[in-house]
Amino acid sequence: MIDPSCLAVVLAAGEGTRMKSDLPKVLHAVGGRPLIDAVLESARAGGASRVAVVIGAGADRVRAHLGKVAPDAQVFEQRERLGTAHAALAAREALATHHGPVLVLFGDTPLVRPATIASLVDRLSAGADIALLGFTTDAPTGYGRLIIQEGRLLAIVEEKDADTATKSIRLCNSGIMAFRPGLLPDLLDAIGNENAKGEYYLTDAVAVGTARGLRAEAVIGKDEDEFVGINDRAQLAAAEAIFQQRMRAEAMAAGVTLVAPETVFFSFDTKLGRDVVVEPNVVFAPGVTVASGATIRAFSHIEGARVGGGAIVGPYSRLRPGADLAENVHVGNFVEIKNARVDQGAKVNHLTYIGDASIGARTNVGAGTITCNYDGFFKHKTVIGADVFVGSNTVMVAPVTVGDNALTAAGSVITADVPGDAMAFGRARQEVKEGMGAAKKAALAARKAASKSGG
Amino acid sequence: MIDPSCLAVVLAAGEGTRMKSDLPKVLHAVGGRPLIDAVLESARAGGASRVAVVIGAGADRVRAHLGKVAPDAQVFEQRERLGTAHAALAAREALATHHGPVLVLFGDTPLVRPATIASLVDRLSAGADIALLGFTTDAPTGYGRLIIQEGRLLAIVEEKDADTATKSIRLCNSGIMAFRPGLLPDLLDAIGNENAKGEYYLTDAVAVGTARGLRAEAVIGKDEDEFVGINDRAQLAAAEAIFQQRMRAEAMAAGVTLVAPETVFFSFDTKLGRDVVVEPNVVFAPGVTVASGATIRAFSHIEGARVGGGAIVGPYSRLRPGADLAENVHVGNFVEIKNARVDQGAKVNHLTYIGDASIGARTNVGAGTITCNYDGFFKHKTVIGADVFVGSNTVMVAPVTVGDNALTAAGSVITADVPGDAMAFGRARQEVKEGMGAAKKAALAARKAASKSGG
Amino acid sequence: MIDPSCLAVVLAAGEGTRMKSDLPKVLHAVGGRPLIDAVLESARAGGASRVAVVIGAGADRVRAHLGKVAPDAQVFEQRERLGTAHAALAAREALATHHGPVLVLFGDTPLVRPATIASLVDRLSAGADIALLGFTTDAPTGYGRLIIQEGRLLAIVEEKDADTATKSIRLCNSGIMAFRPGLLPDLLDAIGNENAKGEYYLTDAVAVGTARGLRAEAVIGKDEDEFVGINDRAQLAAAEAIFQQRMRAEAMAAGVTLVAPETVFFSFDTKLGRDVVVEPNVVFAPGVTVASGATIRAFSHIEGARVGGGAIVGPYSRLRPGADLAENVHVGNFVEIKNARVDQGAKVNHLTYIGDASIGARTNVGAGTITCNYDGFFKHKTVIGADVFVGSNTVMVAPVTVGDNALTAAGSVITADVPGDAMAFGRARQEVKEGMGAAKKAALAARKAASKSGG
Repeated sequence: MIDPSCLAVVLAAGEGTRMKSDLPKVLHAVGGRPLIDAVLESARAGGASRVAVVIGAGADRVRAHLGKVAPDAQVFEQRERLGTAHAALAAREALATHHGPVLVLFGDTPLVRPATIASLVDRLSAGADIALLGFTTDAPTGYGRLIIQEGRLLAIVEEKDADTATKSIRLCNSGIMAFRPGLLPDLLDAIGNENAKGEYYLTDAVAVGTARGLRAEAVIGKDEDEFVGINDRAQLAAAEAIFQQRMRAEAMAAGVTLVAPETVFFSFDTKLGRDVVVEPNVVFAPGVTVASGATIRAFSHIEGARVGGGAIVGPYSRLRPGADLAENVHVGNFVEIKNARVDQGAKVNHLTYIGDASIGARTNVGAGTITCNYDGFFKHKTVIGADVFVGSNTVMVAPVTVGDNALTAAGSVITADVPGDAMAFGRARQEVKEGMGAAKKAALAARKAASKSGG
Repeated sequence: MIDPSCLAVVLAAGEGTRMKSDLPKVLHAVGGRPLIDAVLESARAGGASRVAVVIGAGADRVRAHLGKVAPDAQVFEQRERLGTAHAALAAREALATHHGPVLVLFGDTPLVRPATIASLVDRLSAGADIALLGFTTDAPTGYGRLIIQEGRLLAIVEEKDADTATKSIRLCNSGIMAFRPGLLPDLLDAIGNENAKGEYYLTDAVAVGTARGLRAEAVIGKDEDEFVGINDRAQLAAAEAIFQQRMRAEAMAAGVTLVAPETVFFSFDTKLGRDVVVEPNVVFAPGVTVASGATIRAFSHIEGARVGGGAIVGPYSRLRPGADLAENVHVGNFVEIKNARVDQGAKVNHLTYIGDASIGARTNVGAGTITCNYDGFFKHKTVIGADVFVGSNTVMVAPVTVGDNALTAAGSVITADVPGDAMAFGRARQEVKEGMGAAKKAALAARKAASKSGG
Repeated sequence: MIDPSCLAVVLAAGEGTRMKSDLPKVLHAVGGRPLIDAVLESARAGGASRVAVVIGAGADRVRAHLGKVAPDAQVFEQRERLGTAHAALAAREALATHHGPVLVLFGDTPLVRPATIASLVDRLSAGADIALLGFTTDAPTGYGRLIIQEGRLLAIVEEKDADTATKSIRLCNSGIMAFRPGLLPDLLDAIGNENAKGEYYLTDAVAVGTARGLRAEAVIGKDEDEFVGINDRAQLAAAEAIFQQRMRAEAMAAGVTLVAPETVFFSFDTKLGRDVVVEPNVVFAPGVTVASGATIRAFSHIEGARVGGGAIVGPYSRLRPGADLAENVHVGNFVEIKNARVDQGAKVNHLTYIGDASIGARTNVGAGTITCNYDGFFKHKTVIGADVFVGSNTVMVAPVTVGDNALTAAGSVITADVPGDAMAFGRARQEVKEGMGAAKKAALAARKAASKSGG
């Protein structure tokens, strides 16, 4: 049972010194979105109806970002960095006004699944006062080890305090915790800082609570990959790799062919239908939906776009935000499409730029076509009807409309509307000067020879 | 000794439910060709002179496909799926009319090498009545284990029937079998279905045969990767990965440099000569031959094309079927070539589409050139001679011929033939309107400002 | 202490038969430069002030190459291949005239770090007569094992001579050695060839020296990957992979985001600033510097180029030698830039070729623009000022200059200079023929139908 009144406190104040970055750590991205966004989404999907975020390093940028992506989150600033319990206390105002359970999550731990979070909160409903998320790993060094007996979490022993037997324990602390309603503020106040760094550790809530006779339990996550925290760029890359592996496995399980899964890159919101085939080396930036039976060929880059069923995209297609391809559309190599609807069965196969346009059904856009949509100040629209034949190397100077069944001659510059059924020319007539090619070449060759002997 | 009269029965009727696909499983591809094609080729190369294919799921599509790729194969339909022995019996008519040894292969096990198949049939010549292909693996769980004594295969124990000692056996059953001439029909008839699923298992032929005093032997394949079967998209990707690793290793062993082997994708029939250098991120679709000493640069996609010795292709070149590059040709970035011969030393280096064309030796094709080969109904040919200089952004409106040593002015639309040595112009003369650029900008800027204040 | 008078003898004479190549082995490349170049640089950076290279197989090509990249190296030819000691003796003339310590390195072992080499030479200063570089490995089979006692290297036992205990030693010989001044010539003369192959092995210098009472020591390299030798293409690829991993780790440690590190390829001299973000599938060929905060998007290929801070490059950008992008420049998809300066904030976003040009600040280059810089004999320059608006599909026929704040109409061929503030047209006026599109289509459709029924 997920409690609908759960509050998630997300700790996102850390310096992230080892990132060596001007960008606050939680704004670095995994799967095409900032870490903090991923944590917020997991929190909500895992059952949190309220969110408080504790920021600190790079507070202004993080605050501005949260204002955009999570305007309903309460944001608190931790001015000194004195440990996780101290950070959680920065959200005291949110804690004081909340009457449901409280979750504490970390802004730099973006891969925790909603179901894992939900199972942690569920443990409170089942009787625990404090529930802590642990995981099993073959490389426990550095983590606090969990001492569990008869279903109770008795203690968390830090690496430096662990004897040999304790060190061999593979059950580790993720730091993520949930607390029975009303419990956390008192516990936080009771946590001291008598330790090497003089910091206040949230983890000590277990010791404090247990001493008070509270029941602490641990939920053991099945997949240690959920708990990777990000402190440097290598860990960022490692988290990205885990994210990608997850998305690839899910896509394949749903009936998508990934010819070379390790070369296909997903974003957090990529949606691929059944029997979609993805060739090697494809990047899905955020905002992509591909319908069943479409083929995404090698070296394609797709962002903010919709691809209809049976469509063929690539190789070397770039679909940008607002590209909307209907069923059975073909988009080919070295083609960029942005903010444009392309109707059923239309073809845009070679070396073309389509921006701010609509293209009708079955229309064929010749190689080298350019919609000239920008005059340096405004963007204008190109409207091309159905069954149009756009000759190669046509320039469409928007705003311009080409009617159904029209035809433009290859190499034309189209500056005015073309009625349906018409043919438009906008090119110079060819002239041939006999012998002039050879003469010019001879002259150039002579000059080149002269320049060489002169040098 | 490979028996020239060997019949291969390929079982290809399975539902492939876990593929979650509308495409029959055996038509999914590895290495650029359908699984069934790979199995048929291994069968033939391994010694089968006759092939019978048992189809079932998606029978119409598989039958149609076989009609194209293997018109001499006998095709049988298994209407109910009652196990592998039942499937083999669907080919009874082929078995009845065949007087040589019989192989049974699987349509979803595409990586078995011909030599491995041949060695299985050889075992019959050496005295076995039944020969079964096994393999050694560190992960035997789920496979039937082979009990072998003094060279005889005594039994195959299924996972569920195995005691602890048997479970530790790492010799496993691939399911692939060969039978002495005339033996199989009787054995199939004798196989029962007294098992959990009520199915008839071909593997039981060993028990049935042994009970009759026949000699069963096992051939142990050296490389367990040969025996991966494909039941879902993850296994399809795994088989593809094995295939690619094989091809990459073979290419390197033959004297090809793969700068980053894991990023180069081969098809089943890719042929690369000695001292070919392949940079990262190259895809070879089917039908490619690259001669010695050519360089394929990064991000190239090559399909159905021939690349001559010393040629340089890429980065970002797309060669499509019928591209035929002679020695020392250069094809550069964002260039597509289709159905075109390019003669010695010609250069097509930038942002160009060449389709249905021929280009003579040493000709230089300028950036942005487009052959306009399609009028919406017919494809037409562009013939460009030797030593031609095609100016940048030339459009060739086919059918059109440009003679040797001719020259086209940059930005021309060439609609009529150009004789040798001539120079062709097809562009408008430039006009300059002083101050008009600044004026237009000022007007647009004013409008933009107005639209903003108005909004 | 690195001795400033150290001589490095680089053995680079091997046949490299298993490379199956017409290119001498040491001219094959790792990290974008020939193996021999990498070894020479490590030698110098590790403290060698003089270099002697012993060449043999493919001597002419190697000599010519060295003449270009290391004109101060002394080059000796080993005419027969009789072992490493014999090879070192080929450099006798260099040894005879050198009064400092001597290093012996291998031309096919390109990944040894300068610090490792320096630490070997340091051992001589600390009292060793002979210092040998060893490494620890879990796969010692095939290597000579090091017998070390109380800090002295007592012997090197070859695989074939090793008993079981010795075979379990994981300390192995890399072959790389350093010798106290004046020592090597005598040792080389004393080495015999009483062994299976009848060759003279440099490694025997340890036995010869120790027998004479010299002190031999071993320095154990921390990272066995430094010592991979290259004998075939698979090893070449393995060395490349190690090199890439090193570069990726260093970049991330320095504050570079690599979204998918395994898909980014570096050259030996790639320099990326802090907070550079590199998307998947990027190739850095030699000679690239990217300033802080720039973004290199997917599928970009960059060579010999400088990218300014805050610039955005890609996806699908190709920067070639001499591309020099100032701060905040945008280069987009299917754009090639060669030998061109692009000033602050200029944009070249789509399907464009810029070669031998300069582009002023804030100028916008429209889609499909081509600088026509080559007439078949000479390259000419295009100069575009600041705040220019280059209309889509403009052809600039160089030499040509476009003044600040000018504008070119879409689809124009610019053959003459355009003054500042002016607007230039070079395109035909559009004509429309009503109904002609439909009529032409109907005619073609009829012909097609006829051709079909006729066939």
